[in-house]
Amino acid sequence: MTPPRPHAGDAVLNLSTPLPVIDEDRLAGNIKRVQDYMSAHNLAFRPHIKTHKIPALAAQQVAAGATGINCQKITEAEVFADAGFQDILITFNILGAEKHTRLAALNERISGLKVVADSLETVRGLADHFAGHKPLTVLVECDTGGGRCGVQTPEDAVVLSHAIVSSDGLQFGGLMTYPRPHGEAAVEQFFTATIAALAKDGIACPIRSNGGTPSLFSAHLVPSATEHRAGTYIYNDRSMVRAGHCSLDDCAMHILATVVSRPTPDRAILDAGSKALTSDLLGFSDYGLIVGYPEAVITGISEEHATVDLSKIVGVRPEIGEKIRIVPNHTCVVSNLFDIMTFHRNGVVTRVEDVAARGLVW
Amino acid sequence: MTPPRPHAGDAVLNLSTPLPVIDEDRLAGNIKRVQDYMSAHNLAFRPHIKTHKIPALAAQQVAAGATGINCQKITEAEVFADAGFQDILITFNILGAEKHTRLAALNERISGLKVVADSLETVRGLADHFAGHKPLTVLVECDTGGGRCGVQTPEDAVVLSHAIVSSDGLQFGGLMTYPRPHGEAAVEQFFTATIAALAKDGIACPIRSNGGTPSLFSAHLVPSATEHRAGTYIYNDRSMVRAGHCSLDDCAMHILATVVSRPTPDRAILDAGSKALTSDLLGFSDYGLIVGYPEAVITGISEEHATVDLSKIVGVRPEIGEKIRIVPNHTCVVSNLFDIMTFHRNGVVTRVEDVAARGLVW
Repeated sequence: MTPPRPHAGDAVLNLSTPLPVIDEDRLAGNIKRVQDYMSAHNLAFRPHIKTHKIPALAAQQVAAGATGINCQKITEAEVFADAGFQDILITFNILGAEKHTRLAALNERISGLKVVADSLETVRGLADHFAGHKPLTVLVECDTGGGRCGVQTPEDAVVLSHAIVSSDGLQFGGLMTYPRPHGEAAVEQFFTATIAALAKDGIACPIRSNGGTPSLFSAHLVPSATEHRAGTYIYNDRSMVRAGHCSLDDCAMHILATVVSRPTPDRAILDAGSKALTSDLLGFSDYGLIVGYPEAVITGISEEHATVDLSKIVGVRPEIGEKIRIVPNHTCVVSNLFDIMTFHRNGVVTRVEDVAARGLVW
Repeated sequence: MTPPRPHAGDAVLNLSTPLPVIDEDRLAGNIKRVQDYMSAHNLAFRPHIKTHKIPALAAQQVAAGATGINCQKITEAEVFADAGFQDILITFNILGAEKHTRLAALNERISGLKVVADSLETVRGLADHFAGHKPLTVLVECDTGGGRCGVQTPEDAVVLSHAIVSSDGLQFGGLMTYPRPHGEAAVEQFFTATIAALAKDGIACPIRSNGGTPSLFSAHLVPSATEHRAGTYIYNDRSMVRAGHCSLDDCAMHILATVVSRPTPDRAILDAGSKALTSDLLGFSDYGLIVGYPEAVITGISEEHATVDLSKIVGVRPEIGEKIRIVPNHTCVVSNLFDIMTFHRNGVVTRVEDVAARGLVW
């Protein structure tokens, strides 16, 4: 049988659940607000498509002024290249012959492919494969306090930049970092020290790519950056409200769920579990915020159920069959669960998009 | 471009990552061990397909002796009905006109569809829709200590059973529970009290369905049960090892990952994050067990990266480019992330199956 799929014109509150839905006006507002900020500060903006994985949404971001897109996986980049995107930065250390082969094919297809590297191993692997092919642009990933990937010091960044510069088949693209929130000063320090040292050696550093949504509106505090990358801002979520990036009314994604059981006066069970909300806590102790029932607490989830503690609700409690809306803790992982995403304006479905770049192994 | 897909004959350790892989022999061993136990105790066995979502695997379970399958969503049941399965129990309260319509269509297609209900609201909704159609079999869900859905007492189970019996379009199927682990005594008490009370009213209770993997090998301590349901046992995972259900060598699913960065002597970064492992902790404080490096701790995950603390490793530490294998905390949610699942025997790929019932909204 054909899987269920909402249609334009459907009333959202009549749709079967669980179902993530996106408010078109909030989505457009989030795109515009962030692009306006970047444009005002002369920062190129490169949205990360991990949050939505939908080419039509990246097209909206580019139409608003984004200069390119950011992917995290080769398969994501392939989907967006198929959709016509040319300027794609994959912020990942890419290793291994099979990936190198696909990366080279992608590099032949689009004009602006870029990747990052934080080790000689990654650079040598790329250099060995790309020698004799169309050169691949490689940025050096810098750990400016995020504590994930990245060279640890400007001195190490310089060493790795030289390795890229001296490799046939590679072109040095500049620097990239995924900083800790509010880590602007550390990014600026790392970037300026590296840029200065490279300049002494006669090496230009055309791209300096900073990133992250939580403190996005402080991106101008890194004047050495030429571009900023962010993903979550397009939908926003409960963690971004907590971070002060946005308000609850800027959260474009709600997960529609239905109260399917009220086993006790204090307990409600919803039809949205870890396979709809994910188990991402991101520092919260519960699994999302229920719109209209702020005292209700999603205390537990299993795969297809959420358990809600109603004991703190003073007034009317949700009834069996009632549709409720959940602001998820983390929106990017929700997109990754479903084959389709449903959009609406004022509660009426506007379109349904395939989440084209999800489900792929690497 | 066509997404990457391994092929039979490929060496697993040459495959690009991240990639969940299933050991055929462990899989077969898990199926046989549990089925042998159920058969020895004259318990019908109904595997829950939520763990794999692959018809070919359910076929293996049925070939071994399972009498039917368990689904949690209508769309899952539809995929398995398309694949020829006739005896399907959906252990969910199904509410709403659109779902009732699809459920009725499914009921016309297969001979053994069954659902559960734990409220008069659910029963009335089903009864209103199914009156005049082929009758739908409904079991009463009982909360025997699991604390999720289910009527709270045998008295309430009797009341709801009567409501089903007296509804045109519905047929009373019996009782169902998803118990807490090692809750056998509570299940037995609840079932026997309900069965006895219904017998006094002349109502037979043909199916008494118990469930769960963690204390599966104690299922015989519920003699009133006619069948047992379990999902996780087919792959097993770290949480099942901790529960004492199995050993690490019975974990059929490993997630292949690659060390993509070694930014500091104590830190390794893998290319498997919450979009490969999920963020399910299930009581653990870390995100999976690395085979061969038991002292390594996956302290954090972002969407496409895992951060590993190597500081406790006494001997050799993993190097950039090295492939490692992770036993996930929870296998069922990993299956739900990927469009394909790769199987191997002794490290050589045997087959690649589509995870056919994943990604569907409800």
